[in-house]
Amino acid sequence: MIQNDLFLKALRGESVERPPVWMMRQAGRYLPDFMKLKHKYDFFTRCQTPELATEITVMPIDQIGVDAAIIFSDILVVLQAMGIQVEMKDGVGPWIEEPIRTAADVSRLEIPDVHDRLSYVMEALKMTKTALDGRVPLIGFAGSPWTLLCYLVQGQGSKNFDMAKAYCFTQPQAAHEILQKITDVTITYLKAQVAAGANAVQVFDSWGGLLSPSDYNQFSAPYIKQIVEALKEEAPTIVFGKGCWFALQDMSQWGAAALGVDWTCSARNARYLSGGNITLQGNFDPSRLLSPIPTIEKEVRQMIDAFGKDRYVVNLGHGILPNIPVDHAKAFVDTVKSYS
Amino acid sequence: MIQNDLFLKALRGESVERPPVWMMRQAGRYLPDFMKLKHKYDFFTRCQTPELATEITVMPIDQIGVDAAIIFSDILVVLQAMGIQVEMKDGVGPWIEEPIRTAADVSRLEIPDVHDRLSYVMEALKMTKTALDGRVPLIGFAGSPWTLLCYLVQGQGSKNFDMAKAYCFTQPQAAHEILQKITDVTITYLKAQVAAGANAVQVFDSWGGLLSPSDYNQFSAPYIKQIVEALKEEAPTIVFGKGCWFALQDMSQWGAAALGVDWTCSARNARYLSGGNITLQGNFDPSRLLSPIPTIEKEVRQMIDAFGKDRYVVNLGHGILPNIPVDHAKAFVDTVKSYS
Repeated sequence: MIQNDLFLKALRGESVERPPVWMMRQAGRYLPDFMKLKHKYDFFTRCQTPELATEITVMPIDQIGVDAAIIFSDILVVLQAMGIQVEMKDGVGPWIEEPIRTAADVSRLEIPDVHDRLSYVMEALKMTKTALDGRVPLIGFAGSPWTLLCYLVQGQGSKNFDMAKAYCFTQPQAAHEILQKITDVTITYLKAQVAAGANAVQVFDSWGGLLSPSDYNQFSAPYIKQIVEALKEEAPTIVFGKGCWFALQDMSQWGAAALGVDWTCSARNARYLSGGNITLQGNFDPSRLLSPIPTIEKEVRQMIDAFGKDRYVVNLGHGILPNIPVDHAKAFVDTVKSYS
Repeated sequence: MIQNDLFLKALRGESVERPPVWMMRQAGRYLPDFMKLKHKYDFFTRCQTPELATEITVMPIDQIGVDAAIIFSDILVVLQAMGIQVEMKDGVGPWIEEPIRTAADVSRLEIPDVHDRLSYVMEALKMTKTALDGRVPLIGFAGSPWTLLCYLVQGQGSKNFDMAKAYCFTQPQAAHEILQKITDVTITYLKAQVAAGANAVQVFDSWGGLLSPSDYNQFSAPYIKQIVEALKEEAPTIVFGKGCWFALQDMSQWGAAALGVDWTCSARNARYLSGGNITLQGNFDPSRLLSPIPTIEKEVRQMIDAFGKDRYVVNLGHGILPNIPVDHAKAFVDTVKSYS
């Protein structure tokens, strides 16, 4: 039994006294205790050590008071499980020494036993469940196949992921093969996360919004849709496509419990584009948390007024920034909790 | 008299046999002759030497066959004219050693005599007019006040321009003072460009799409609107706001001759959002020029079919990338020219 089930109620579309709130990257660099662990252990060590992942996952529950926990991990662990060497370089971000560039390279992608290769994630989920002791629900997650292909081909972050796009545009068959492989692994992976205790899962399509609607419909949408459909009987799914306002109408038909939106899409536009009947999640500009606290309070209240308290999960429109003062993050959450 | 006036006709909303075509950054690094000059002269030397700016501006007319020239320059020359030291660092991009960070810093912004400080731009426009000899129209341009503030405060490019936003959110009065100063200088500057021969001007709001609609309405829209209104009697204005789909409806009321859109906004959405009566410009994904030529040809034709041949200027949805093969750029332009 989960004591605070506001988040799950909102995902089911049930009426609530106030909307639930959590923040993407809520267990992140703005938290001093996170920084202590960051100085002691490198990024993937933190992901791969269930005790550390658990400690980090629970931090924002204890310290900020959010209504849901999201397991500390990374979307790129799926590529690692598929046999790709991924590093996290300081000042650079994700780094793949040998990215996929040719059609023949596709064979380098293994279909792993995720219960084995990613057992540390499932163990972290179980340990976190114990640590949470039913206080709040726990969210599992994965990257969208298109977003993972972006890193897999480009080899690192990019403004436009032009090499990843060029791969899709010049070798569409190979690209679709990669996307399908990632999709299959992701489905097994997310099901395993639910079996290990995740109460809901989120698919992060961080780079879907770099595509034109027609390319999105070719290279991103069909794969996320498969994932959502495969998870339908398992747990509620949230699809967050950064910059994917143009796809909200289609997305609302996939069977997801909720859709994430960013701050460029107003509540009014988001409700209109998604048809008005699906739970929405978002969409505070992370940089807006640099405002003075009274401004944050005013704008959060306005945001809830605009989305309405039901069928709504308060969140940022992207991950929280490392330079946000803790008391500003707390003001964000507290304002939601005192909303009436 | 301009021999090929398709572009100006499209801006006036007149019917044409086929839409005009030009490309943002058409005089750029994908051109081998541009690279030769780039290796010999640094960025701002190329901007500040009218002979070089003219030679570069005319290159894509001779070599690619576009229907309009756009003066080779940079949006940041306005900040330089206002007394700010701006460098272009290799591998980094724009760099301001001493960015504006406090309210008191605003006084560092001078209101210059642009005819003096930016005389090299006006001279380049005049020389280019002579070199073009009436073949195609010449476009002048400036950055939007918000986009210039982004660099002025952040000091360099950024994924989210969080410091620029924080400046606006914590010191709105100082921010508005900066934005108004830039607006005033930009109006004089664009009028001077028209007097020097520009047949149309474009305002680049490269970072407007990083703002929420409500922040956009505070920090970007009012200033672009002032510029458009001030230029109304001088020359047709194009407003290009990257990622600003949410503002198209308002923008269509400002009196601009055309609105630029990027590739995430479909022709259908762009026509719907802008009201259907204003000329639109765009919106081919620059990365799509990495596709095989037959694919480019097919997609360009589909794009024109979708926008319709009238009230439409074919362009990319952002600047052309340095790694585009010249024959792909040419295929893009040739497809438009053979459209019927």
